[in-house]
Amino acid sequence: MFVVLRKGCTPEERNNVVRAVEAAGLSVHMSEGHHRIVISVLGDEDRLRDVALDSFAGVENVLPLRRPYRLAARESRSGDTVVRVGNHSIGGGQLTIIAGPCAVESEDLMLAAAKAARDAGAHMLRGGAFKPRTSPYNFQGLGESGLLMLRNCSQEVGLPIVTEAMDTRHVDLVARFADMIQIGTRNMQNFPLLEAAAETGKPILLKRGRAATVTEWLCAAEYILNAGNGRVVLCERGLVSYDSAVRNHLDLSCVPLVRQLSHLPILVDPSHGTGRRSLVPAMARAAVAAGAHGIMLEMHPNPEHALSDAGQALHLDELEAVISDAQAIHTLLQKSQVPVS
Amino acid sequence: MFVVLRKGCTPEERNNVVRAVEAAGLSVHMSEGHHRIVISVLGDEDRLRDVALDSFAGVENVLPLRRPYRLAARESRSGDTVVRVGNHSIGGGQLTIIAGPCAVESEDLMLAAAKAARDAGAHMLRGGAFKPRTSPYNFQGLGESGLLMLRNCSQEVGLPIVTEAMDTRHVDLVARFADMIQIGTRNMQNFPLLEAAAETGKPILLKRGRAATVTEWLCAAEYILNAGNGRVVLCERGLVSYDSAVRNHLDLSCVPLVRQLSHLPILVDPSHGTGRRSLVPAMARAAVAAGAHGIMLEMHPNPEHALSDAGQALHLDELEAVISDAQAIHTLLQKSQVPVS
Amino acid sequence: MFVVLRKGCTPEERNNVVRAVEAAGLSVHMSEGHHRIVISVLGDEDRLRDVALDSFAGVENVLPLRRPYRLAARESRSGDTVVRVGNHSIGGGQLTIIAGPCAVESEDLMLAAAKAARDAGAHMLRGGAFKPRTSPYNFQGLGESGLLMLRNCSQEVGLPIVTEAMDTRHVDLVARFADMIQIGTRNMQNFPLLEAAAETGKPILLKRGRAATVTEWLCAAEYILNAGNGRVVLCERGLVSYDSAVRNHLDLSCVPLVRQLSHLPILVDPSHGTGRRSLVPAMARAAVAAGAHGIMLEMHPNPEHALSDAGQALHLDELEAVISDAQAIHTLLQKSQVPVS
Amino acid sequence: MFVVLRKGCTPEERNNVVRAVEAAGLSVHMSEGHHRIVISVLGDEDRLRDVALDSFAGVENVLPLRRPYRLAARESRSGDTVVRVGNHSIGGGQLTIIAGPCAVESEDLMLAAAKAARDAGAHMLRGGAFKPRTSPYNFQGLGESGLLMLRNCSQEVGLPIVTEAMDTRHVDLVARFADMIQIGTRNMQNFPLLEAAAETGKPILLKRGRAATVTEWLCAAEYILNAGNGRVVLCERGLVSYDSAVRNHLDLSCVPLVRQLSHLPILVDPSHGTGRRSLVPAMARAAVAAGAHGIMLEMHPNPEHALSDAGQALHLDELEAVISDAQAIHTLLQKSQVPVS
Repeated sequence: MFVVLRKGCTPEERNNVVRAVEAAGLSVHMSEGHHRIVISVLGDEDRLRDVALDSFAGVENVLPLRRPYRLAARESRSGDTVVRVGNHSIGGGQLTIIAGPCAVESEDLMLAAAKAARDAGAHMLRGGAFKPRTSPYNFQGLGESGLLMLRNCSQEVGLPIVTEAMDTRHVDLVARFADMIQIGTRNMQNFPLLEAAAETGKPILLKRGRAATVTEWLCAAEYILNAGNGRVVLCERGLVSYDSAVRNHLDLSCVPLVRQLSHLPILVDPSHGTGRRSLVPAMARAAVAAGAHGIMLEMHPNPEHALSDAGQALHLDELEAVISDAQAIHTLLQKSQVPVS
Repeated sequence: MFVVLRKGCTPEERNNVVRAVEAAGLSVHMSEGHHRIVISVLGDEDRLRDVALDSFAGVENVLPLRRPYRLAARESRSGDTVVRVGNHSIGGGQLTIIAGPCAVESEDLMLAAAKAARDAGAHMLRGGAFKPRTSPYNFQGLGESGLLMLRNCSQEVGLPIVTEAMDTRHVDLVARFADMIQIGTRNMQNFPLLEAAAETGKPILLKRGRAATVTEWLCAAEYILNAGNGRVVLCERGLVSYDSAVRNHLDLSCVPLVRQLSHLPILVDPSHGTGRRSLVPAMARAAVAAGAHGIMLEMHPNPEHALSDAGQALHLDELEAVISDAQAIHTLLQKSQVPVS
Repeated sequence: MFVVLRKGCTPEERNNVVRAVEAAGLSVHMSEGHHRIVISVLGDEDRLRDVALDSFAGVENVLPLRRPYRLAARESRSGDTVVRVGNHSIGGGQLTIIAGPCAVESEDLMLAAAKAARDAGAHMLRGGAFKPRTSPYNFQGLGESGLLMLRNCSQEVGLPIVTEAMDTRHVDLVARFADMIQIGTRNMQNFPLLEAAAETGKPILLKRGRAATVTEWLCAAEYILNAGNGRVVLCERGLVSYDSAVRNHLDLSCVPLVRQLSHLPILVDPSHGTGRRSLVPAMARAAVAAGAHGIMLEMHPNPEHALSDAGQALHLDELEAVISDAQAIHTLLQKSQVPVS
Repeated sequence: MFVVLRKGCTPEERNNVVRAVEAAGLSVHMSEGHHRIVISVLGDEDRLRDVALDSFAGVENVLPLRRPYRLAARESRSGDTVVRVGNHSIGGGQLTIIAGPCAVESEDLMLAAAKAARDAGAHMLRGGAFKPRTSPYNFQGLGESGLLMLRNCSQEVGLPIVTEAMDTRHVDLVARFADMIQIGTRNMQNFPLLEAAAETGKPILLKRGRAATVTEWLCAAEYILNAGNGRVVLCERGLVSYDSAVRNHLDLSCVPLVRQLSHLPILVDPSHGTGRRSLVPAMARAAVAAGAHGIMLEMHPNPEHALSDAGQALHLDELEAVISDAQAIHTLLQKSQVPVS
């Protein structure tokens, strides 16, 4: 850690910083430049975590060298994390395809979607029973009865399911029905929810907040890892966009970046990530080419009558072609001489 | 509502839209322009809420005319909402000053801060017992014992307190100690938390999400209002910034905008809104000049030793001057010939 | 076009709008809803281009139906535009590879880069002689002598060159040496420069502004097309990012979007688009998978000694592998059943 | 400057960095921490300006200590810069009011606006003769004849004028008619234009780019200062917004920030800064309260018939009240005990 002091700071201001560092059991090296004075802190900067050096008089800037997450950092383990969900592994050599409707609307529709997803080559199903909606007047999901439908469809087609939990009071209920618990974009920094979900021991799909930095995202993963659950899968789903032409700006550069910084697997959701069905096939392909471990696709047997996010759901016949392209790109990249990480 | 169809759409595609609209009990007016065909929907467009017209084949765009919130809209009631907290009224003619440390750290420090806040002219105290922190390794708040300290200090100085609830399971606990429940920026769209907080009947301070549009924010307020609790106060606290020179971009233009769109009172938090103590006085003054009903200021008896957000807390001696300026501007604006709303 | 009036507007306010529309030779259809009054404008809304309906008293909103660009719109011509640069065609079936250093530094270095680019399979060279730099104290390019070096290297290796023009006074000079003129991101809305470059008759590479919407970008292209030069190639190069982990947020969703909205070819520059060499290979592959007509790569024989943007330049040996992957993905997508546009 | 190396870097990689630093005549101090190795560079880091240390193998990060601008920095001179325009001084104790229409449309309208501006208390006039417009089909300004009208009106009412130059070829023409040359938001990083404008010796009004950081803005000012023209006035005019409720996000926190970092005066344009007339009075007041040296207001004798940006122009009768409030707040703040800078 470096503490940068204003050139004109007083000896007392400088000494206050030194004393605070030394009180934490660390030592300092001081260097006086043309424009600033810099105190280099030697030793484990974690010990200064709760000392607000940036608030000391005379201090211009504090430059930490450690990242604020540890267990999520690549250096914390050798090799990539592989998360097992049912019979499927996320993060190994295989490309993961998750497909399904945005919300569970009825058992018939869900079953039709589930069969189509399986036939098109998906490894997992998605579908929401608890739906976070911007307005209280929109469809909020079927709740527990939706979870039951999901479970039935999952058993019928033989694919594991991922579904969202929104409330610490419902985490155990969701965990009874789901193979994997989704933390949605609006809850990425709902820390009690992260911890409650972690404690179920289930695999967690952690969507990126729509204005979260990669560091904040990995810190959110750290809450889960730190609660003793190492089965975390990240999922990029688009950032807030200032261009109304797209609902979100899908950030694919986070894929190679996360693969460099962390050992956790990363998926991409091009459906929410663009909000427009016509952009989903291209962005699904691009996500795989960027090195994603998998993609998460919204599809609907009848998008015109979907109760949420209809404009981004693929028709059943599009789904198969998108998955086929994605798998072909994945196979091709396995042989590339410039690996992602 | 208008449904815009591509010029080359088929008669069947056009008819599908018309049928869906008429099935909802509404009628249509069709106009064919040079470049597009437009179906105007006549009647209460709410009935189409769960019909995904934007997903119908041939449809290019759907332009709703109604806003997605109602109870929060200015038209839903005459006059401004005034929220009573203890003996203090937010949103009437008076400028509200809330002050206190970011987190409750000890009863001694909290009491020192509370006395200073009161002496400087504050009407309410703030302080966090449950702290949402980006990293799990940072100070997370004292929890219930922090709430108890807050309550004691509140009684000692005679000012009501506002403090944050982060978890639906703790809402009742917080409600027992607090005069007003804060929903933090990360939880603006934590809908179960909004509803649980609403159900306590306590006044709610709803901070804006750091990447939320004004519409999304008012929709979040709508969740509380729709749960039967009309005592909502909004608080702007800065948006995600692409400029690392400030921690957040404080959006003051939302103040007059919200006052035009809604009857709810709106405060500004320039401390989180900038993240830099040296910018707080100027932005506190600007917030009042923009028409805010009040300001929320972080202060600390000893910012160098604050356990969270130390870089933005005012020293005690700065607090008084800032409040004095704010009150003077407020008084001046009471006489302006161009009211905010 | 629709003009939305406040419910409580006066008859006179309504009549003012109607009169203004009719004065432009258009007719109206009025519909009065529960919450708003809407005037639909029938006829060619272009005639209202300079009538500020959104400023009339009583008007809440104006919703145009026409896009503000025409020649750039897909509907304006059948098929895709193919731009010929030297012997190479951009926008036909072939994937375009442009490679070279950020800036021309010396003829030796430029020639080494040019040969490596050609050997790795590039179709065109890039290199800046006029460099827009954030600070006046950074290397500003070699100017005319750099243009001469570029021309010599181009002839030596037999590949056409693209280089940036920054000043209307230098456009003719650049046009004498370059096969294609680049308009940089900072100049996307430098309208006199767009027109001056268009008038040279040379093909134009129009980079997207780093905070430009797709509509603004296509409007900038419209300036060139409207000046009589149809040889425009678009290039995405990353948007302003609020996450300091990347220098820019590369927006790949604009690729399929632009291909739907326009007939112009679109390239992607993953080097500026990420600002980090380690992310370039993944994003180059992703750009091609998203449907880009080509990619523009920075490379340098010796990145450690590059005078600008060194952190994003590929080493020579990386270049070949990236191009090979890109071509393989392009070939694969030629057979896809879900075309981009 | 600090150069942070990966823990596992080789001795050769480390030595390469040291050699490069020493070759520039500087010395190093090396410290090896738990997680990284850090090389502190001792001496004037400017000498390393063109050495791309961040591109050296083994280097993780480079942390410069110097800001990239110098003449614009507060430390470069004692006291604030005051810029004289005609008989008016910007940046002294007086609050500057600039008012006028967006574009010059006719001499009659301009004269009516000029007289109203003068009568309401403005010190300077604004009006565009060269107009940068997103679409080529919108009104582009009257050019030289507009400049002549501006000059005539200026003489008639006795107030100096500021007007925009967009093209290096027109800078001298604009300088002949204008008292101050405006560089618009789209041209903030049009470096040849900055230098050409500087060379006229006229005062320059430098608007902030709509996605520029404060550092980039001060670097743009540095281009002007470095060209020998110290008469620079900054003007904030709103940043790109992801919320369609406002056209731009006016960033008032940059006002106190710029006043801390620089000696240059700073104005605020709440008209472009919000894009909505109804928000202008509140934001004009807030700008002054934030410490701006002045405000720039769009007004129009008849906004309904303005040829550009009509939705944000004040009516004549609003103008006087806004100026009166602004002056009252300015007077009040002169007595504040917490100065902005």
